[in-house]
Amino acid sequence: MNTRILILLFQCRDRKGIVAKISDFIFRHGGNIITADQYSTDPQAGHFFMRVEFQVKDSPCTVASLERALASIAKRFRAQYKIYDRDKRLRMGIMVSAADHCLMDLLYLWRSGELRADIPFVLSNYPRHQEIVEQFNLPFYFIPAHKRDRREKDILKIISPASDFLVLARYMLVLSSNFLKKYGKDIINIHHGFLPSFKGADPYRQALEKGVKVIGATAHFVDNKLDAGPIISQEVEYVSHKDDLSSLIRKGRNLEKQALADAVFSYIQRRVIRYANKTIVF
Amino acid sequence: MNTRILILLFQCRDRKGIVAKISDFIFRHGGNIITADQYSTDPQAGHFFMRVEFQVKDSPCTVASLERALASIAKRFRAQYKIYDRDKRLRMGIMVSAADHCLMDLLYLWRSGELRADIPFVLSNYPRHQEIVEQFNLPFYFIPAHKRDRREKDILKIISPASDFLVLARYMLVLSSNFLKKYGKDIINIHHGFLPSFKGADPYRQALEKGVKVIGATAHFVDNKLDAGPIISQEVEYVSHKDDLSSLIRKGRNLEKQALADAVFSYIQRRVIRYANKTIVF
Amino acid sequence: MNTRILILLFQCRDRKGIVAKISDFIFRHGGNIITADQYSTDPQAGHFFMRVEFQVKDSPCTVASLERALASIAKRFRAQYKIYDRDKRLRMGIMVSAADHCLMDLLYLWRSGELRADIPFVLSNYPRHQEIVEQFNLPFYFIPAHKRDRREKDILKIISPASDFLVLARYMLVLSSNFLKKYGKDIINIHHGFLPSFKGADPYRQALEKGVKVIGATAHFVDNKLDAGPIISQEVEYVSHKDDLSSLIRKGRNLEKQALADAVFSYIQRRVIRYANKTIVF
Amino acid sequence: MNTRILILLFQCRDRKGIVAKISDFIFRHGGNIITADQYSTDPQAGHFFMRVEFQVKDSPCTVASLERALASIAKRFRAQYKIYDRDKRLRMGIMVSAADHCLMDLLYLWRSGELRADIPFVLSNYPRHQEIVEQFNLPFYFIPAHKRDRREKDILKIISPASDFLVLARYMLVLSSNFLKKYGKDIINIHHGFLPSFKGADPYRQALEKGVKVIGATAHFVDNKLDAGPIISQEVEYVSHKDDLSSLIRKGRNLEKQALADAVFSYIQRRVIRYANKTIVF
Repeated sequence: MNTRILILLFQCRDRKGIVAKISDFIFRHGGNIITADQYSTDPQAGHFFMRVEFQVKDSPCTVASLERALASIAKRFRAQYKIYDRDKRLRMGIMVSAADHCLMDLLYLWRSGELRADIPFVLSNYPRHQEIVEQFNLPFYFIPAHKRDRREKDILKIISPASDFLVLARYMLVLSSNFLKKYGKDIINIHHGFLPSFKGADPYRQALEKGVKVIGATAHFVDNKLDAGPIISQEVEYVSHKDDLSSLIRKGRNLEKQALADAVFSYIQRRVIRYANKTIVF
Repeated sequence: MNTRILILLFQCRDRKGIVAKISDFIFRHGGNIITADQYSTDPQAGHFFMRVEFQVKDSPCTVASLERALASIAKRFRAQYKIYDRDKRLRMGIMVSAADHCLMDLLYLWRSGELRADIPFVLSNYPRHQEIVEQFNLPFYFIPAHKRDRREKDILKIISPASDFLVLARYMLVLSSNFLKKYGKDIINIHHGFLPSFKGADPYRQALEKGVKVIGATAHFVDNKLDAGPIISQEVEYVSHKDDLSSLIRKGRNLEKQALADAVFSYIQRRVIRYANKTIVF
Repeated sequence: MNTRILILLFQCRDRKGIVAKISDFIFRHGGNIITADQYSTDPQAGHFFMRVEFQVKDSPCTVASLERALASIAKRFRAQYKIYDRDKRLRMGIMVSAADHCLMDLLYLWRSGELRADIPFVLSNYPRHQEIVEQFNLPFYFIPAHKRDRREKDILKIISPASDFLVLARYMLVLSSNFLKKYGKDIINIHHGFLPSFKGADPYRQALEKGVKVIGATAHFVDNKLDAGPIISQEVEYVSHKDDLSSLIRKGRNLEKQALADAVFSYIQRRVIRYANKTIVF
Repeated sequence: MNTRILILLFQCRDRKGIVAKISDFIFRHGGNIITADQYSTDPQAGHFFMRVEFQVKDSPCTVASLERALASIAKRFRAQYKIYDRDKRLRMGIMVSAADHCLMDLLYLWRSGELRADIPFVLSNYPRHQEIVEQFNLPFYFIPAHKRDRREKDILKIISPASDFLVLARYMLVLSSNFLKKYGKDIINIHHGFLPSFKGADPYRQALEKGVKVIGATAHFVDNKLDAGPIISQEVEYVSHKDDLSSLIRKGRNLEKQALADAVFSYIQRRVIRYANKTIVF
């Protein structure tokens, strides 16, 4: 038998009857709703978001045919929408600089089968990760980028055709607006600070100097402003005056791994929707 | 204009098309879904639960007429269901023994308008709370119950007609099966331990003796077995060897207040569904 | 018998033998160390801080005589130091505007005997708290201060002679540098945001607009810069896109109560030392 | 120059002057106290514990000579004590069954230099870890132990001479009393449940069936009773009805890694003291 799980993302201005229309649409096409999440920025006059995960069994429907069938409903609600096959794996490119804890965590989760994506490459401006990446049977690219020569063209040549989205697993060079525009797909970054505090370089040092009692890490989409794109997930931990820079860095590593893995899991499962410089994470 | 928010709780064996049927039903009766949560214990052959909050505007529908109209759908799915008016306040009776921190917290939340319920009485086996309860303009009953004479008949006479559900805000006498049966409505208890560890008396002392590094508090429904009813919410906090009994008790008070307030908020908003000795908390 | 607990706070540049000298000093004066905490910003050439809690039994020593006796050691180390009688209660003045959750929490902790301080007054620019404060048998002052007339002279006349330190339990007017200078004692403020993010007005709205996934509250000493004094304690909680302004405010209240109560407890127990715009909290 | 950091652990019945005596002892032998922690189960008549980390510079003192010198003080207080060289690395043996997340985490921390111990071997009853362990240039032993033949003699032959302590990084066979006795050194186990709840097999399934709202993991010393030895560290995380067995297991992995790494770090730094079936973790 042929059972598939499909995911519908749908958004429009909120109006009466949307949920009913969509639920009915899925039912009429032989789907059984497994889980449906919706959120409205304001029940009176807000923007409406919906994510539906539904099962289709022994059905001739394809993602493309369902998307076509949904077009007339979407038109009536002036909605944007997209349907995904849950089992079609995204290609997640990884870029990393010196620190390898986030890289290792992602590779481990990938090999264990939990992180259901393909990893077409790991690209770094440090050669040191070659051996470990190749032990996972993954392609490794070393591009000696640095502050004065970011080598963005060379990088784009590798990553653009090979990846559906990009994870900056502690990649320490800022990417230019031009790079972002040319790549044109989602980029998730892990920032080792509790945004919007402590943007830019050395956030743990900034936290130490401010004397905060809680540190954090933030996974967010990259956009043109430094460390200011929509936040996907944050992790925090209590610290004290006893923590010095090295213990903050050590504690921070766990936070970074967790925040990034959370964000990547949610993204891959199509749970993350960007809206107005924020995210909805179903 | 006449706008009301209604809440539908619906459960049955999972089958294709339930969500569509219910969404359509609400739409046809002029409702606009604000939020819908559903959960299935198993998408193949599980039990299905749904909570829908929907707005009805300028409609002649009443809770009763909607419930009648839903009957035929419910019959087809062999479902149990109930519709509530969100603004119809529940009557929440409170019973308390000596410790008053949970009581004070509930009274404060009630007076601030956050806790949208009526409090028909506070009943205690300690007379000391009379003054503070009356400052909130609430009726106080002192029933000198104790281990050898629980005075359950006298208590039932007061609480049964006056309350829709009962909160044991640190009431330290065990209620008999007979009491539970006669009262016949939901009872929420706060246990000052991390269940299922540390049932019964003196859970903080038990935690101290075991040397745990985390303590907790548990809000749960009361049933016939001691401290074993379905858990609604739990709160935890890290402790260390430095904590003695008094600091565990002090830290625990915050946990108890939070776990109980959480449970009560969820319950009042009809977010809590009991199923198979567990709870679903939407 | 006459048993007292004394607390010594001691700080100087770090040098060999400080702990030995101080321990020996306490021993020679009949004291038994209950707990000693020390911290050095850098073991090689840092600044050294120590807090010792010790028991003195049947001893003619007074705080004053011990302080005199310690002077020669302190001189050798160029140290600052102070000895306190743990049971001598500080006078904690409270100022509050409209929101009363932190006030109520402090009053409850005070009445329960946990918060071992005297409360000489509650002063507010809102008259509404009069009844509840007087139910606790505490003096209440209403001073109709507002943005264009902060009435600082009137306030100082009341608070300066009556209090050893001040708690701003959600007092919403900024205090002038002149006020701080004239009062001249410690002021602890609760800020309803996770500093250094979200200074100034409406921090929950700022957090909402930024789309953070964690909110926080910060208890800190007040100094001349807005919301920038040394942080004493912070509490955080995870939030999501579903949280609107009112739920952030509601969740925030718990954080504020906890962060402020923590800071006040630590302060009263002489566990808080200010140093270089940060705090050491033993 | 020759600078060393030494660690003294000291315990006895609490009496006046202990801290002074020890501080003075260290000072007289040219030591500078970096950090000192002490704890007394009861200041009146309790048991006293102290851990002192001190720096010795250009001194002829050895661990052995200092231990001899301390003997007379220790005798007076009827104390047990031990001095360690902080930089003398412990040999940490690792045993593991099928699940490798804790193993991988320890190996990563070890290779990064954070975990300052030697790893003389990884021993498993599953052959699958051979490749990864050897990539870290560590010896791997496969012993096909199972429930009916635990192969304890063979295991002891390998681990006894090679290790100072043992970490069970998800080793799923119970070790016999005889094994514990013959090994005779500390064994740290990670239990994938929040002890004392959910001992024995399948703790996540137990948690699921009980419907708890918080899950946990516990690192503890192994003794004769199943999952009942002194707890060193615990980590917890909130869960909901939506979590099924696989998501509990996934979330639990993070908790297990953290609790075990915490316990191992504390142990290696000589911060863990066993006392009366509990631990003091300085």
